[in-house]
This record gives sequence, C-alpha cells and structure tokens, in this order.
Amino acid sequence: MTRPEQPRPESADLPAPTLEVIPLGGMGEIGKNITVFRYGDEIVVVDGGLAFPKAHQMGIDLIVPRIDYLLEHQDKIKGWILTHGHEDHIGGLPYIFARLPRVPVYGLPLTLALVREKLSEFGLQDVDLREVTYGDEVRFGQSFVAEFFCMTHSIPDNAGYILKTPVGDVLHTGDFKIDPDVGTGAGIVSDLERVEQAGKDGVLLLISDSTNAERPGHTPSEAEIARNLEEIIKGCRGRVFLTTFASQVYRIQNILDLAHRQGRRVVMEGRSMIKYAQAAQATGHMNPPEPFLTSEEVGELQDQQVLFVCTGSQGQPMAVLGRLAFGTHAKIALRRGDTVILSSNPIPGNEDAVNLIVNRLYEIGVDVVYPPTYRVHASGHASQEELATILNLTRPKFFLPWHGEPRHQINHAKLAQTLPRPPKRTLIAKNGDIVNLGPDEFRVSGTVAAGAVYVDGLGVGDVNDDVLLDRVNLSQEGLLILTAVLHPTPHVEVVARGFARPNRDLELQIRRVALEAVEQGLREKKRLEDVRDDMYGAVRRFTRKATGRNPVLIPMIVD
Amino acid sequence: MTRPEQPRPESADLPAPTLEVIPLGGMGEIGKNITVFRYGDEIVVVDGGLAFPKAHQMGIDLIVPRIDYLLEHQDKIKGWILTHGHEDHIGGLPYIFARLPRVPVYGLPLTLALVREKLSEFGLQDVDLREVTYGDEVRFGQSFVAEFFCMTHSIPDNAGYILKTPVGDVLHTGDFKIDPDVGTGAGIVSDLERVEQAGKDGVLLLISDSTNAERPGHTPSEAEIARNLEEIIKGCRGRVFLTTFASQVYRIQNILDLAHRQGRRVVMEGRSMIKYAQAAQATGHMNPPEPFLTSEEVGELQDQQVLFVCTGSQGQPMAVLGRLAFGTHAKIALRRGDTVILSSNPIPGNEDAVNLIVNRLYEIGVDVVYPPTYRVHASGHASQEELATILNLTRPKFFLPWHGEPRHQINHAKLAQTLPRPPKRTLIAKNGDIVNLGPDEFRVSGTVAAGAVYVDGLGVGDVNDDVLLDRVNLSQEGLLILTAVLHPTPHVEVVARGFARPNRDLELQIRRVALEAVEQGLREKKRLEDVRDDMYGAVRRFTRKATGRNPVLIPMIVD
Repeated sequence: MTRPEQPRPESADLPAPTLEVIPLGGMGEIGKNITVFRYGDEIVVVDGGLAFPKAHQMGIDLIVPRIDYLLEHQDKIKGWILTHGHEDHIGGLPYIFARLPRVPVYGLPLTLALVREKLSEFGLQDVDLREVTYGDEVRFGQSFVAEFFCMTHSIPDNAGYILKTPVGDVLHTGDFKIDPDVGTGAGIVSDLERVEQAGKDGVLLLISDSTNAERPGHTPSEAEIARNLEEIIKGCRGRVFLTTFASQVYRIQNILDLAHRQGRRVVMEGRSMIKYAQAAQATGHMNPPEPFLTSEEVGELQDQQVLFVCTGSQGQPMAVLGRLAFGTHAKIALRRGDTVILSSNPIPGNEDAVNLIVNRLYEIGVDVVYPPTYRVHASGHASQEELATILNLTRPKFFLPWHGEPRHQINHAKLAQTLPRPPKRTLIAKNGDIVNLGPDEFRVSGTVAAGAVYVDGLGVGDVNDDVLLDRVNLSQEGLLILTAVLHPTPHVEVVARGFARPNRDLELQIRRVALEAVEQGLREKKRLEDVRDDMYGAVRRFTRKATGRNPVLIPMIVD
Repeated sequence: MTRPEQPRPESADLPAPTLEVIPLGGMGEIGKNITVFRYGDEIVVVDGGLAFPKAHQMGIDLIVPRIDYLLEHQDKIKGWILTHGHEDHIGGLPYIFARLPRVPVYGLPLTLALVREKLSEFGLQDVDLREVTYGDEVRFGQSFVAEFFCMTHSIPDNAGYILKTPVGDVLHTGDFKIDPDVGTGAGIVSDLERVEQAGKDGVLLLISDSTNAERPGHTPSEAEIARNLEEIIKGCRGRVFLTTFASQVYRIQNILDLAHRQGRRVVMEGRSMIKYAQAAQATGHMNPPEPFLTSEEVGELQDQQVLFVCTGSQGQPMAVLGRLAFGTHAKIALRRGDTVILSSNPIPGNEDAVNLIVNRLYEIGVDVVYPPTYRVHASGHASQEELATILNLTRPKFFLPWHGEPRHQINHAKLAQTLPRPPKRTLIAKNGDIVNLGPDEFRVSGTVAAGAVYVDGLGVGDVNDDVLLDRVNLSQEGLLILTAVLHPTPHVEVVARGFARPNRDLELQIRRVALEAVEQGLREKKRLEDVRDDMYGAVRRFTRKATGRNPVLIPMIVD
C-alpha cells in the first residue's frame, strides 16, 4: 500500500507542519459540502456542492460556498475528490471550477457522468475528470494519497475515502448508510472490511455523516422498501404513479424489476428523471428489463399494466406530480382508480408544498400512498446503530462529526462518548474553521472566510444579505413610492405595490400629508434632502397610525 | 330532556325546511373554525376562530373567516356556541362580533374568560356572554337546543355538544381526544356515557375532529407526558427551562405539581404564559402549590431549585425561548448545565423557526430535550382508535369529517367505512358548502361565500390576494423604479430595492437603456404613456438579458 513520505519541514528551522482540515461548507449545516485538506503547500479538495435557499432567502435560486480561501491558494490545489453525485456535493462545481485552475478531479463513473453533464450545461468542457473505482489509490502531490471505498447511500457509485497524510490517516465516510441489501441484485454493500482494516491500521481522524444522528436504530434497507412497494403495487388495480428522487437509482431499478414481474410497463416522466436514468444506464447502474414507453404508448395498455415514475416528490408545482395534482399536465390526467405513491419524504422546508399536493390528490379521488402510514421511503443516511458501527470499527483518535447542523453534530458526538472506546477528542466545527491535526494535536487554530454565495438568475454573488433584507422588508408590508414634483407648483404622486388594495381615500390622505410636509419645508427654505426626509417622516407616521403598517417608503423629489 | 318541536313549514304550501349545516371555516383546513346551523329563519353559530398565514401570505398577521353569509342573515342569528378557548376557535370573534348584532354567546368559564379578555383588548365590552357547564341545555329560538358535554382536549373547559333540531340530533365532538387521565387530580375525562346515550337515542349527523385521522393507535395521555417530564426533570442538576403552549393548562398544572415535589420553584415567563395562567387560576383550573416567583427572586435559589415555564415553543424569535436562544433576554442568560425542554411539536410551517432555535441551544451548550427522542409532548387530538370509538358509540346515520384538510377528512371517512356499522353516507365538505340535512337527506345543495379575510396591522380585508401577489413578486427579485424627468433635458433616475447590491456599471447601463427608449419615443412624438411603456419594455428586456432576473419595474414619467 502506498504511503506518503514523512513530514518534510518547509525549512530546517520550522517545525513540521500540521495537517489543516478546513470545511468551507457542510459543517454545521446540511448542504453545499466542500472540505479542504492542506499540508504545507499542498491542498486537496473534496466535493463542491450547493444548498437550496430557506424561506427568508427570497427569490434566490441556489446557494454555493464561498471559496475565497481556494482562490487565494489556488496554486496549491493538487486535485479534487468527489464522493458522489448528489447536488449538495457536486452542484456547486460549475461555479467553483470556472474560477480555479485545471486540476485532476477524481470520482466514480456515475458521479463523473453527472458532473460532466452539469459542466457542459455551463459550457465548461475543459475539466480533467478522472475515473476511479473502489480500491483505487490516487496520489495528490507529495503529501496525500486517497483510497476510495464503497459506502452505500441513496445513489450508486457513492464513496468514502481514506486520506493518507504525513500526520496519519483520515477516514471520511462520505454520506452513507450501511444498507445490507440495496436490492437490484448487484450485491452492493458498504465495505466494512476496509473500514475495519483502517481501524486496525490506525485512524487518526474520523469524519462521519451526522445527518441522522438523532435517529435511533438502523435505517431501513432499500430491499425492504422494494418489498413494501411490491406488495402495495400488487394491490393496485389501476394505473400507478410513483415519485421519488430522480437520483434514487437503486430504488428505481427495484421498481423497474417489480413492475416487470407484475406485468406493468414503465413510463419515465420528467426531465431530471430521464437525465438520471440515462446517466445510470450509461454507467451500468440501471438496466430496464423492458424498454421504457411513452405516455402515448401506454395509452393502449390496460390501467393495471402501467406504472409512471415521475418527478415532483418535493412538491415542486412545475414538476410532473405537481402538474398532475393541479390538472395542468398536457398529456396525462389523474382519475379515480389511479394510485399515487410518494416514495419520499419532504426535505425540511418543503413540507407545505408537498402537503398542498397531497391534499389535491385526495380531492381528485386517487389513492395516495406515502410515509409514515406506508413504509415506502428510507433515508440514505445512517442512523445511530450504523454510526456506532463505524465509530467502533475505526476507533479514531480524533472525531469530526460532519454533514449536520449543530444538533446533529452534537448528538453524534454524544453517541461517540457512549461507546466502549470513545475518541480522545471530538470537535464540533463550523464552516471556515481551520482544524489543526497532528499525531497528538486536534484543535481549531483559526478561521478563514466561508459562507454563502447566492445565485439568482445569472448573478452569482450580486445578491447579498442586504439585498435579501430589502426583499424581506418589501414582502412584509409592500411599498409606497412618493414622488414630489416641485414645478410648476408642488404636487405629490403616490405609487403603491403590495401595500393595500386600491383605496382612493387613503391615497388622497397620503398625498395630502406628503404635500403638507413638502410645502412647509419649502416655506422654511430647507435643503431638498431635508424636505425629502420630512415627507418620508410625515408619511411614515401617518401610515403607521392609519394602517398599523410600515411599508417600505421611497421618497423622491423632482426639482 | 327538552326537545324542539316538529318541523314547522314556513307556509302551508312549502315542504318542511331541512336543516342547513354551513361551515364558514375549518372544513377542508385546520384553522379559523366557524360553523353555521340554519333551520328556516333561525341560525345558531359555533365558534369563530382565526388561522395563521402560510409562507406565501407574506406580512399578514392573521386570517379570519369571511362572514358575508352571517352579515346577510344577521337578523336570524339566535345565538352562539363556543366549544373552547383556542385561537382557532375564538380568535376571530373580535372581528366577527364587531359587525353583528348582540346575541347570547354560550361557553364554559375558561372559554369565556379568554374571550372576555380578547374582546376587551378590542374595546368590545357589550357582548352577551353566558356561562354554561357540562350537561346544560341551551335553547336557541324555536328550532335548536344545544346540550354541552365534556370532551378532553389540550385546554380545560373544552366541550362537545348535541344540537337537537327538528330534523334530528347532531353530535359535534368539537376538538377532542379521549384522554384517560389528564393528570392534575381533577378527574376530568371525556363524557363517553353521554356520547353513548346519544347514540342510543339516535344521532342523525356526527361532526367529528379529523386532525389526527392519519395517526394509528391512541394519542398519549397527559398523565403519561407528566410522568415522562417528572423522570427527565428529576435527572436535571441545573436549572430547567420548559416551553409549551400557554393554553396547555393541564400540562402546566402537572408541571407545577412535579416541580413542587422536586423542590423546584416556578417562574412563569412570557406575556401569554402569564395571561393564560391568570385566566386558568381565575376559573379554578390552575392551582399552583406554591406562589410563582420572578426571575429575580429565584436568583437567590440554587440551580436545581428552579424551573422556568416559558413562551416560545413555536420558534417565535421574540418569545422568551427565542430571546434565551439568541442571547437577547434582558434578565436571563442560558449556560451550560441548564436543561431546555420543548414540550411541544412545531405546528406545520414553524419547523424551520423551531429548528433554528434548537440549533442555537445546542451551540450554547445546554441540554436540549424534545420529541420524538423524548416523549414530552402529546397532541390534543384523537388518533384513529379514539375516532373509531366515537363513531362506534354514536353510530350516526350521516357523517361529516371536520377540522381537517382533505387528507384528514378522507382518511377519517375511510376509517368510518371499516367499522361494523358505518355511516349511511359521509360527505367531504368544504368551507361555504350548504349541507342539507333531513331524516333521509344529506347532500350539498349549494354554496355561500366563504374564505379568508386577511388582517394586516389595523387593516381587516384591505390586503387581498392581489396585494399579496405584489408582495410575492417584490420578494422574488426586488424592484427597480425608473423615473424619467423630461425637463430641462430628459434624464432617468433609477432606484433599486432588493434587486442587486450597488453596482455603478449596471445602474449606468439601465439608465442608458431607459434614456434611449425615452429619447426615441420623444423624437417620434409618442404619447407620454407610450414613452413610459417603451422605457418599461426596454429595461425589462435588458435586465432579463443582463441578470437573468425580472424585478418589479415601476416606470414613471415626470413632464
């Protein structure tokens, strides 16, 4: 097995450098994962994901990590490790790669297929993507060797890795669950032997997935979900519409197989469903037992011979399930006798949107099947027993609970403390922390810039928190624009948006209040800025008193 | 037992009228409950609640039901029944009573105490509130007699009622669970004997609470929650901060009792916590074993002698728990060793806000206790076994699943069909439906106006869906105001809010594009309206191309 050489002091007078682990995203949050490892003048980076905005981040399309640190140290970057193809791990890459020099990027085939498609959408062709498989070792500069190993997750070709460094070995689980059987017949399981061997060889630092650290027990297997789906679909006499995450390739393969057994032909509906199916087929992870049909083609079949696999599991109104629920799909209309299966849970923040669609489905009169009443979804992340297994097998000296909010990180840390051989030290890190790691050292030594860059339309970073605050203010009580025109005689125009429905009386009163302030200011020969401020203040007081509201006021004086 | 007389035809030629059941709120939704019963020229109304806005109803404070139907038929209203004191049942009354004639309003003591306080905040003193107790019968005009009976819920003095009408008996559960033991030692249980007797006498229509119709089993009892809390608090060596709904009087009494047993003195923190505690004490539902202390007074006690009961269970940033979590409370600061117990679940829509606070609490380093890891909360609504019990005891001819969204109503209806003696007919009604009820009739015969009135600041109904749409649009991509001033020479001013952070280049480009459109229009001697539209169109195209965004554009021409 390759081993990086021993620490090389940068100069004879300096002590050997420590390893720096610098999470730029995904630490203290779930989303936009990106982790930097630096040893001396060499950097390796892991993943580059995006996050979706929360409700108060109004109008934002998506969020990518700040990479100021990488821009500053771009000459040191030796390469990139990609763990898997989910958006929160690769969705930020087009924004990141566009600003950094070309370095080798390593990942498994499905991961790279998804990255390649994503980059080509952005016109980024010149990226050095290098395919690896489980067990491969990749060298980055003088300081790092990464070995990929299989961890099961809710997408194929998911990898953890062991990063061999001059100070010791870091084992990063990546996103994972320990799924004893993903179905599909491919026999894919987490490589616990390799994890155990790493533990025997000595793991200096474990970085492990905290998403489900609050869930007791063991996350259900995909095979169990497949059995439950098979049972449910067997009982359906009409058409079946099933929605799940388009990247849930194991589950979709299991559904293709059970549909085949039950004599149902499958229609894939929705752009991302088709995109992922193509990437999964191209990389050998999806093997439809029969060709897919179109919605027109299945029109000639009987209802119980049809199964649609659809986008829209998160309540997106424009995805297939959304259009079906709202009756706006161009080709397909739901009807009594159909069954809709939501093989998914709402991601936090999407609960209302999903609930709205579920209610519409009930109103249409179709049968609706969803968790927890039916066990038709399993998380892709490990629960407490699985997390304990990894901690017990690796017996790390130091522990960094990762991929979680503070509640998940801290519960993961507490879990570790209950085990027979707890880590010597656990850190609850944040994005931007510089975590110094040495054979006997594990501490936060400083911070670098980290955080969120908002992507809105074509703009990357031109919407910041100040702009968002304006949007929040506008959304709460709307807007009044006051334009005072001074010539030939002073008068005031009022334009309102989102303030109140047209109300001639109220408008006249506002104009009068504003005009009085302006006229008084002019009489007192105030500066125009002060006249404008007086108008602002007078209308502010008036609207508060008359309506109890504080709209955004924009006063303008036209001289 | 009083019985209303037989149907009185309005004229010899007309058939006897049927009873009309008209839900104006709370049917097909959870919130703003109000139900109208009409027989001929007589109306009785039940409850008058409010709802809280969803995320897209931006800036709205609260929502009350449209009561056009009651305004139109106000001379027919004989009186009002109040089932209990939750906001979704009484919170709309100040808005409703202000617009309708004075009629008798019946409710139990705690309900009326809360209504009285609410009305007095609005300066509405002249309301005819009449106290009843369980078993009381109240006559409304010639057609209705209502008999109140006890159903347990998450607030004391909760009532169901049997409405005896010329066409038969209607049994309305009100909000309920069948709690075998609410704790508190008061021996309060749902009056299943009365429900059973009603079933024997014959229930024509059952109206029953559908909130938890998707939950199997039996909702846990308050006594069980109290035992779990006692166990947890016994293990706390520091201060305890517990938050729950301020109206959860049984639970709070149980907490006062267990605190007393464990030698902890109680501080009530938060305006609504104190308000409900006062109303509950005034009506005999809360009996603190020791006087409450202030946060200053407990400063002299040891940490393990203190328990705070706080507002803020829904993540409200300005409530006590919110201020504690964000470190902005004027008198109290959390510290390691404290335990915070969330004896509550987030109401749908509040998940993010609660999650934010939970994470902050972890970051502070206090111990945080919440469901489902700890069973420290129980719903106030019946699960499937309890719903089945009510259906089995009442054996109604007709069934109206109420207090639920379509998913809850339909699952409640399906549950009813699985029982040994299912209802002859079940209707899934919506707000505004006129449900005609006769000895052999149960159908929707028409609709009346129903829906939402938005309350925003002092305005009731002056913000409508058009105004909200403006707010949504403003929130998504902000706003550009273009002011073209034509004299002495044309120039354009641009004001932006929520669009992008200040960018001199972009602003100059927008001004140039706008000015070119204006100058061209003037050259072509277009009407000023058309010049304005040209400017709008040119800037719309430019911003879309340059930024990928469509801000709200407000073009103005000052001549």
